[in-house]
Amino acid sequence: MSKIRTLTGITTSGTPHLGNYVGAIRPAIEASKDENVRSYYFLADYHALIKCWDPERVHQSTREIAATWLALGLDTDKTIFYRQSDIPEIPELTWMLNCVCAKGLMNRAHAYKASVDANVANGADPDFEVTMGLFSYPVLMAADILMFNANKVPVGRDQIQHIEMARDIAGRFNHIYNKKLFTLPEAVVADANDGSAVLQGLDGRKMSKSYDNTIPLFLTEKQLKKHINKILTNLLEPGEPKDPDTSAVFQIWKAFATPEQTEEMRREFENGIAWGEAKKRLFELVNTEIAPARERYNEIMNDPAYLEAELQKGAEKARAEAAPFLDKIRKAAGIKCFK
Amino acid sequence: MSKIRTLTGITTSGTPHLGNYVGAIRPAIEASKDENVRSYYFLADYHALIKCWDPERVHQSTREIAATWLALGLDTDKTIFYRQSDIPEIPELTWMLNCVCAKGLMNRAHAYKASVDANVANGADPDFEVTMGLFSYPVLMAADILMFNANKVPVGRDQIQHIEMARDIAGRFNHIYNKKLFTLPEAVVADANDGSAVLQGLDGRKMSKSYDNTIPLFLTEKQLKKHINKILTNLLEPGEPKDPDTSAVFQIWKAFATPEQTEEMRREFENGIAWGEAKKRLFELVNTEIAPARERYNEIMNDPAYLEAELQKGAEKARAEAAPFLDKIRKAAGIKCFK
Repeated sequence: MSKIRTLTGITTSGTPHLGNYVGAIRPAIEASKDENVRSYYFLADYHALIKCWDPERVHQSTREIAATWLALGLDTDKTIFYRQSDIPEIPELTWMLNCVCAKGLMNRAHAYKASVDANVANGADPDFEVTMGLFSYPVLMAADILMFNANKVPVGRDQIQHIEMARDIAGRFNHIYNKKLFTLPEAVVADANDGSAVLQGLDGRKMSKSYDNTIPLFLTEKQLKKHINKILTNLLEPGEPKDPDTSAVFQIWKAFATPEQTEEMRREFENGIAWGEAKKRLFELVNTEIAPARERYNEIMNDPAYLEAELQKGAEKARAEAAPFLDKIRKAAGIKCFK
Repeated sequence: MSKIRTLTGITTSGTPHLGNYVGAIRPAIEASKDENVRSYYFLADYHALIKCWDPERVHQSTREIAATWLALGLDTDKTIFYRQSDIPEIPELTWMLNCVCAKGLMNRAHAYKASVDANVANGADPDFEVTMGLFSYPVLMAADILMFNANKVPVGRDQIQHIEMARDIAGRFNHIYNKKLFTLPEAVVADANDGSAVLQGLDGRKMSKSYDNTIPLFLTEKQLKKHINKILTNLLEPGEPKDPDTSAVFQIWKAFATPEQTEEMRREFENGIAWGEAKKRLFELVNTEIAPARERYNEIMNDPAYLEAELQKGAEKARAEAAPFLDKIRKAAGIKCFK
């Protein structure tokens, strides 16, 4: 029986933070160790261009994200780790999928509809500042997935619709050309209790670049300490019992602690641990987990040739699958040589 | 001073007919002989997929159109003659252009609006049967043009808007990334009096596949004669004067005749030439011009390896320009190696 194929894309427009680490990177690297799974991870730089027109930011983010995954131990011999823009078969497949994809499907995409709603609420043209990239990226995403016949795509709840769209487009292509070319992918939504929960940021809201409340993953120890000290707390004094379940400090603790450590900290909160002390311990806990990877991260960031070689290795493996498969897809649609 | 660059795409979903020959192919091949011009001609098979989901039709049409242009004497050493789908840089550029192209621009495209109007008139959903291919093909067309920095694009009136869109997208990309990457293309609209006029079909309407009134370009002599005999005429008898200016026979004659031959036939009409005789002479005139190319066409259709080699030669020349240029465009947007 052939292995289950899972695929994960990471948009390269930001700097990895603790929320990305806990919610996506750590579980993905853990999952990639499963011998029954063939995992594809890619740096989605063509998706980044939709929202980021700053070339330095796109480039730097791609570098940071690639270095992060490698530093955290992604095994590039067992997985396929590549940069989307190194696979020209993907935009080519995107065009072919465009030709069978109903425009109405894109009209109903949540991200697009949210932009339209916001524009209408502001009295602007419904499509104000909407690019064709924003409107049509579910087709690019379908190509990302279908190119490698992924069975399972781990996503957040907001992405389920995109996987359904990829299924729809795949089914339509198979139907029109009367072939079983594409596997219909399934969304795998992370359970909120499996440790890949959404992490709170400095202000207690979801940790996110757009809220400017993140703790970047690979800060120096000094900077990490500083950031953790900035986590919003209430005015309760040392000795006064504190509610762990409404505290970002406790929530981040939980994401890094063993169950025993979590129980212990819960008792400390009830016993009135000082915020300063709780943050100090949080720093120690996080730093202990992060420190070895941080060192490796800095090494990799200073060795662009190594980074490039790793990505080229991934691109080679990815294209070894994508190129012959695209050839089959092209032939099905009538695009072929005359010989 | 560098040469002017002109670019022409031919959608590969039909069989070339006399109307294509007179209106597009003959003037294009003539224009390609101008030493001051660098001409690009391509088989637009990725455009064909929008309207044609019949793989055999797409393949056969690509073959017929390629063989037609070669048989008619297109010099592939002096021009660049390629199949769109052999240039992976084009769909890649299409995606990059999507990311800067306003969706509102596509909303206003004539072809899309015509589909919406027809749907609304039928009480259907405005986007009924509209694919993302139909909606977004002006972006693919912009990539076709901008990839080779074409200055001039010969088009029919209905295509002027697409060239304006390509200009708009090019200008926006140049502006966002603060570079002078793309040349702004200009539409060149054929003058109705320059011999590349719209040809009438068998029923007197514009010769077009959609009216099923065409005379295919490379029929056997016998079939050509048969088709010409089917041209619609009125019931005037031999000896009765006939109006040349309302006759498809005369109009097709004019497209193949010298000015002297045209004047002579005008007099014959006034003198009451029999329809049968006029058609017989028309067959002779058309056949004399077509016959040598017909022979060559049949040879080429029977030599797929030659045809493929010609297209590979074109693809190589086209990619020698497209690949380094795309690399510059990618770099401008932040897509580059880490070395």
